[in-house]
Amino acid sequence: MTPAQQSLVEQLRARFGERIALTEPSDVEPWLTDWRGRWHGQSPAILQPRSTDEAAAIVGLAGEPGVPLVPQGGNTSMVGGATPAADGTALILSLRRMNRIRSIDRAGRRVVAEAGVILQALHEAVLAQGLRFPLTLGARGSATIGGLISTNAGGTQVLRFGPMRALVDGIEAVLPDGTIHDGLSGLKKDNRGYSLDQLLVGAEGTLGIVTAARLKLVPPIHSRAVAWLGLASPQQALDTLRALEAGTDRIEGFEILPRESLEAALKHIPGTRAPLDTPHDWHALVEATADRADAEPPADLLARLLAPLIERRLVEDAVISASEAQAEAFWRIRDSLSEAERAAFGPATQHDISVPVDAMPRFMAEAAAEVERAFPGTSASGFGHLGDGNIHFHVRAGSRRGPDWLEREGEAVQRLVDDLVAAAGGSISAEHGIGVMKKDELERLSPDRVRQLRAIKAALDPNGIMNPGKLV
Amino acid sequence: MTPAQQSLVEQLRARFGERIALTEPSDVEPWLTDWRGRWHGQSPAILQPRSTDEAAAIVGLAGEPGVPLVPQGGNTSMVGGATPAADGTALILSLRRMNRIRSIDRAGRRVVAEAGVILQALHEAVLAQGLRFPLTLGARGSATIGGLISTNAGGTQVLRFGPMRALVDGIEAVLPDGTIHDGLSGLKKDNRGYSLDQLLVGAEGTLGIVTAARLKLVPPIHSRAVAWLGLASPQQALDTLRALEAGTDRIEGFEILPRESLEAALKHIPGTRAPLDTPHDWHALVEATADRADAEPPADLLARLLAPLIERRLVEDAVISASEAQAEAFWRIRDSLSEAERAAFGPATQHDISVPVDAMPRFMAEAAAEVERAFPGTSASGFGHLGDGNIHFHVRAGSRRGPDWLEREGEAVQRLVDDLVAAAGGSISAEHGIGVMKKDELERLSPDRVRQLRAIKAALDPNGIMNPGKLV
Repeated sequence: MTPAQQSLVEQLRARFGERIALTEPSDVEPWLTDWRGRWHGQSPAILQPRSTDEAAAIVGLAGEPGVPLVPQGGNTSMVGGATPAADGTALILSLRRMNRIRSIDRAGRRVVAEAGVILQALHEAVLAQGLRFPLTLGARGSATIGGLISTNAGGTQVLRFGPMRALVDGIEAVLPDGTIHDGLSGLKKDNRGYSLDQLLVGAEGTLGIVTAARLKLVPPIHSRAVAWLGLASPQQALDTLRALEAGTDRIEGFEILPRESLEAALKHIPGTRAPLDTPHDWHALVEATADRADAEPPADLLARLLAPLIERRLVEDAVISASEAQAEAFWRIRDSLSEAERAAFGPATQHDISVPVDAMPRFMAEAAAEVERAFPGTSASGFGHLGDGNIHFHVRAGSRRGPDWLEREGEAVQRLVDDLVAAAGGSISAEHGIGVMKKDELERLSPDRVRQLRAIKAALDPNGIMNPGKLV
Repeated sequence: MTPAQQSLVEQLRARFGERIALTEPSDVEPWLTDWRGRWHGQSPAILQPRSTDEAAAIVGLAGEPGVPLVPQGGNTSMVGGATPAADGTALILSLRRMNRIRSIDRAGRRVVAEAGVILQALHEAVLAQGLRFPLTLGARGSATIGGLISTNAGGTQVLRFGPMRALVDGIEAVLPDGTIHDGLSGLKKDNRGYSLDQLLVGAEGTLGIVTAARLKLVPPIHSRAVAWLGLASPQQALDTLRALEAGTDRIEGFEILPRESLEAALKHIPGTRAPLDTPHDWHALVEATADRADAEPPADLLARLLAPLIERRLVEDAVISASEAQAEAFWRIRDSLSEAERAAFGPATQHDISVPVDAMPRFMAEAAAEVERAFPGTSASGFGHLGDGNIHFHVRAGSRRGPDWLEREGEAVQRLVDDLVAAAGGSISAEHGIGVMKKDELERLSPDRVRQLRAIKAALDPNGIMNPGKLV
């Protein structure tokens, strides 16, 4: 521990007790590596405030000596956003003890939750009050509200409810100077200059520590149904989505996956089975919901809207979940695709990218062809949120596979995919953020943008203590 | 004209022709004063780009010599946000020639409009394509898209669709360094760091020039109905709103006004007549819409939901518009209240404030009593967007009236009202912004916040050329 770190820990313990800082290596060790095991860092201690005031004291004391802080929630970043640097200069600031739901406003449909609340716990708490927080994703059992805000998380229901940015109604945060920004007032209108709330969404902890948030809620799901479709191509999937959207505003999710991704899940994920009897080149999972008992049941709605599409062969085959268990089984396939692909295909580069929705089918075909031409033996494909123009595009090593393929060619593949995305007017990070993983690429492709972001970062965090080395 | 201004104008004319700058006093004069005649400035020229590239050239050339620019749209600011300083150091940058609607995406429900498009023209253009831009307000015949974004405008339909911030899907802007930020890509998901789009919303032209925006559209109104209610108090109005919201999600507007405001309109606005036969202490205007032919007609919906409220005397009396002309007549009363009050009561301080919605009825009563006690002879009241927790609170001179009452006591009244708002956890600017009018008060009441905003401003606009003297 550096003298500055030591001094910080001692001052904090004197004020807030021993447990404000964990310094036993066995306590710290699990949090030095990201969950996928791609980034390893060092840190001598985890600071774990129980309140906003404690968090503010930590940041306030860290500023002058310039002790870097790495905010951490569930440690589920896909881009190394919560891993400390390898040189051990940073302390981890874990929000896990700030895990209270402060209030639920049933009439106004709002919840105030602390940063360390786990997404699934939030789902359950508001459901118990007859309400629903619609954002959800595979890591919901670990990911925390603070992390979901700091990465502007997406997930599978963005189609209808938008990403985290659209669901945030106010943020409480400790700013880099140790002051507390209180955006939890619940004002529906407030035009006092730039929105610090919105600035903190997606800031990846580089502008301050999100300590709590006021979030929008929606009516609970009364019933839902999930259809599994067999399709010929992403273009037919998109045409299907457009046809469904023309007939209803109750489509919440629309995910696509190619044949080989489904096969990987069926082979490697215990308990999965094929939703359809015959194979198809592409599949789509469509969720429709009803929030009222007197609405047309979602299964009926899907059956009615899909019938003419099957008739004209836009959809090759379809099955609609007959029970909640079957709906869950369909989603389980979707949620396990990353794991299944790793097991089935070994090393692959993964690209969380977006292009304008209508351009996605063509992009997928052309980008895959381009990559496979440049790196013969690889195979490229994508799955995910077609309705959001956001695909998780994977390039699998294939015949180029070797113990160090990712080290040898990963960066070159990354650059090619990113160039193709940029040429298509897209984003090299649709929902996972930048972290350490995409920092260099962001600067290579968007130097003007990075210059503006850096200016903002330097203005609010002149000592550079907030999650240094990430994003900007 | 200063040498720096002269040089800038000459360079621009050499590149873009004579009309890029207007220097005739008769051309400039009308734009030196805000529309209410409260702020007067000086400027030797108006710059009027026709394209984003021309706007970028202007900003780029102004940066080095440090020539301040005051962006101007329809010049309808309520807080002096678009008026140049009195010392003549700034040039006006008018966006009025950038008034093209670049594209309308019917399937995706988006429009890309340039900053100088007038709100009413936007309404008409998208309606011709079977779509609707839901934000509207009294100044729609003059206010421009750029100004509405830069002030995060509210208006009368915020209840259902949110303020401008919620309707912006992307912004194109010239940043203070002369580079162009292009946020018009149409990506539904993009997590490449801080949202410059959201930072520019409500920035009052202090961080750059908004040149165009991609805006969300909604289905057009198939039919609407407006109910006019007689009520005993703001609390009963709020209870009525809650009861209506429990029965439908189709309430778009809910505005309240006191007896004397209605009487002022009836007396001073030609062609208005009382909606109800008997007088009431308070009134509410409620708009419900349907966007489909097969929905319950809005008039039937309002009648069904209001009947039990009249039955239990929560609502004293009600009339529902029987025609579009009658609905318009009801709105005309609401839209003319500022003008009517000026004519009826003479000088008044006007306060565009918000508190949490549920706290508004009590705030209105207590704040009025407090002000009338501190300034005997005045009368205080409010009207407006109760459902948003946003009231336009007016303190009328009453018996203290005199030719210079506003000069003598305006500031003291302002400070008292602002203190009461701050004590209630509210905002001293709900929808009009800060401009020059509320700058000192913002700093007095929120010094921490202003420090953060100033840091951001200084980082992005180190030469201080963007609308200096406004907001921060």
